Amino acid sequence: MKKIVIIGAGFAGLRLARKLKNKNFEVWLIDKNNYHQFQPLFYQVATSGLEPSSIAFPLRKVFQHYKNIHIRYAEVYEIYPAKKSILTSIGEINYDYLVIATGADTNFFGNQLVEKNALPMKSLSEALNLRNRILQNLENALVADKDTKAALLNIVIVGGGPTGVEVSGALAEMKIHVLPKDYPELDFNKMNIYLVEAGSKTLASMSTEASAKSESYLNKLGVNVLTSTQVTSYDGNEVVFSNGDKIKTKNLIWAAGVKGNLIKGLPENVIAKGNRIKVNRFNEVEGIKDVFALGDIAFMVTDKYPNGHPQVATVANNQADILFKNILNLQNQKTLIQFEYKDRGGMATVGRNLAVVDLPFLKFQGFFAWLFWMFLHLMLILGVKNKLLIFINWMWSYFTFDQSFRLIIKSDKK
Amino acid sequence: MKKIVIIGAGFAGLRLARKLKNKNFEVWLIDKNNYHQFQPLFYQVATSGLEPSSIAFPLRKVFQHYKNIHIRYAEVYEIYPAKKSILTSIGEINYDYLVIATGADTNFFGNQLVEKNALPMKSLSEALNLRNRILQNLENALVADKDTKAALLNIVIVGGGPTGVEVSGALAEMKIHVLPKDYPELDFNKMNIYLVEAGSKTLASMSTEASAKSESYLNKLGVNVLTSTQVTSYDGNEVVFSNGDKIKTKNLIWAAGVKGNLIKGLPENVIAKGNRIKVNRFNEVEGIKDVFALGDIAFMVTDKYPNGHPQVATVANNQADILFKNILNLQNQKTLIQFEYKDRGGMATVGRNLAVVDLPFLKFQGFFAWLFWMFLHLMLILGVKNKLLIFINWMWSYFTFDQSFRLIIKSDKK
Repeated sequence: MKKIVIIGAGFAGLRLARKLKNKNFEVWLIDKNNYHQFQPLFYQVATSGLEPSSIAFPLRKVFQHYKNIHIRYAEVYEIYPAKKSILTSIGEINYDYLVIATGADTNFFGNQLVEKNALPMKSLSEALNLRNRILQNLENALVADKDTKAALLNIVIVGGGPTGVEVSGALAEMKIHVLPKDYPELDFNKMNIYLVEAGSKTLASMSTEASAKSESYLNKLGVNVLTSTQVTSYDGNEVVFSNGDKIKTKNLIWAAGVKGNLIKGLPENVIAKGNRIKVNRFNEVEGIKDVFALGDIAFMVTDKYPNGHPQVATVANNQADILFKNILNLQNQKTLIQFEYKDRGGMATVGRNLAVVDLPFLKFQGFFAWLFWMFLHLMLILGVKNKLLIFINWMWSYFTFDQSFRLIIKSDKK
Repeated sequence: MKKIVIIGAGFAGLRLARKLKNKNFEVWLIDKNNYHQFQPLFYQVATSGLEPSSIAFPLRKVFQHYKNIHIRYAEVYEIYPAKKSILTSIGEINYDYLVIATGADTNFFGNQLVEKNALPMKSLSEALNLRNRILQNLENALVADKDTKAALLNIVIVGGGPTGVEVSGALAEMKIHVLPKDYPELDFNKMNIYLVEAGSKTLASMSTEASAKSESYLNKLGVNVLTSTQVTSYDGNEVVFSNGDKIKTKNLIWAAGVKGNLIKGLPENVIAKGNRIKVNRFNEVEGIKDVFALGDIAFMVTDKYPNGHPQVATVANNQADILFKNILNLQNQKTLIQFEYKDRGGMATVGRNLAVVDLPFLKFQGFFAWLFWMFLHLMLILGVKNKLLIFINWMWSYFTFDQSFRLIIKSDKK
């Protein structure tokens, strides 16, 4: 029985492993968390709208009853393609096929000062830290002098993609509906929320309508959108922009770019821009037999995508589906299928009743887009109970204008 | 307007503050967490049955709309009774009346080695750490040698009071229903769960029936109950008992005693056994005017309770009620009311359909006791949404035999 080792239980890795349930392969699924995390809703954890557990799903629960799937909670340190093995925190593991699905992490583009002081949001832990930090800063604002208070209240979000737009909108709604009730001693007119984007518009990857609407929704919620603006420095107290402007803030959320989670051991010539791994149309790493890369970490060039594919969940899922078929094809010595991405559009939600949806033949915004966004995300979330709990939380928030999880919980006491 | 400073938002402090809403007092409620935590269900967080947020309630949410209540998220370092002020992490705060409701923490009775290595469960953070540790040890067991594996699987719970009994039962049910499915590679016959009690029986504070039943329920679930046994040492790998016996375990849960969370600044003569503060029948600290102590930290002697009152939620709540009335009485120069505790009984749950309930005129065990226990806890939990979410989780677990929150989540990354 061939042994398939999958590194990473994000969208791509989890999807592939689930397809391989009860198939004639020995599958090892390795992740540095013991759960799959649903990245599209990190921003709701960060803004006290959902509990971490609602969007995290224990891997062992997914694979109960499937004896051919072995889950290991471990870090992977290095790949040895020549030996067909990997080095991990729990020892060396050999493979017949290796699938690298390690995803992407925040890219600070080499700015170490920003990296040290800004708040990223690319994991559940980071989303929780963000929640803790913002709530802690509000508490501090109660007892701070005037200058410090401004920095504690102001929030700057960097990056006008879906994540930046969604977190800006959620924070703006908190500022309107929740915070003045929670902190009657603070003046929230003094809280300014800025969304900073280097390009000329928000949601640049979507349609012109979606871009324009998202910006007008953000303005409506009181977010100051600063396009064509770059961050040059951030010391934890003041952010400096390329045009020389400065804003005092102790809350800088960084959602401005990603880079692949590379693992040591691959030759340099297979590494593309943004720490991605060059793969052929079968997701096989260029020139390395039996090693595949999927999803955000994979860099595949096609006629339609000469600069690689977008780093989104649908690409990851579709690549996993094709690789699954190709693994069976390899087994049965059939011809392999080439991956071809069919973009079915995108969506983002700015606030209650405010979302934008681009479908291939239909673009719509507003209330129905918002309903559609919620419906789709509920469908995509793993597990009936998670769907139910998220649905209850969303309905609750909708009718009470409240986000319930304003807890500063730290688990690092001992 | 008189200024009342309450230290601690546990049962007693929160109850008093809620009674003082919209009353003619300036109230400051100070806690080291920004939420009230519902201690009776910590064990369910520790055993993956409930999410922390289900049993934590943001203080600011409780007091929205009440402008006379000021919440401060701070540590209290010292009390200056002569100056009528306290020193906190956010500066000095003066008071007209001070209420100490700081509760109790785990008592290791001076055994530093045990304190260093055992897992306490007296806060939400500690309950989460316990969950993380047990799950992490199971993961480690997959790749451990035989000797280490035994230590990783074995669980020893010290203390046969309600907490010890409840956590033992919950872990035993996890061992039966959940873990073999999650870890098909591990042999759970090798996992032994021990409940160790220094006295002669479990639930010694309850009726003989309840004690006897709780032990038989535990046996039924496969827990080894070791009574009249004391822990003398624990190095993190092996626990040593007073009779010389030893058990290898990396999971030692300590629920064997509590001591008051004392704050510096009170004279030594008001400190009683177990770090409690001596109070008179009006909960006023002996000899210190305008300083009160409530709940677990208070040591009040009455004819019925010559050794002080039990450190349970009902005493805390009742004392808060009486103190509220007495504060109004002081204001109106009326006679103060003496506190008198009416014990309405106790209860504990061992597992599904297995609970024991002692009421003044009725003692019952089994399924109806379990229903009664659930009903009462749901009533006591703050917030409609929390009640709803807990109810759904309980029903879900009941019908699926599953506990859903088997997540190792750490929030301490940055």
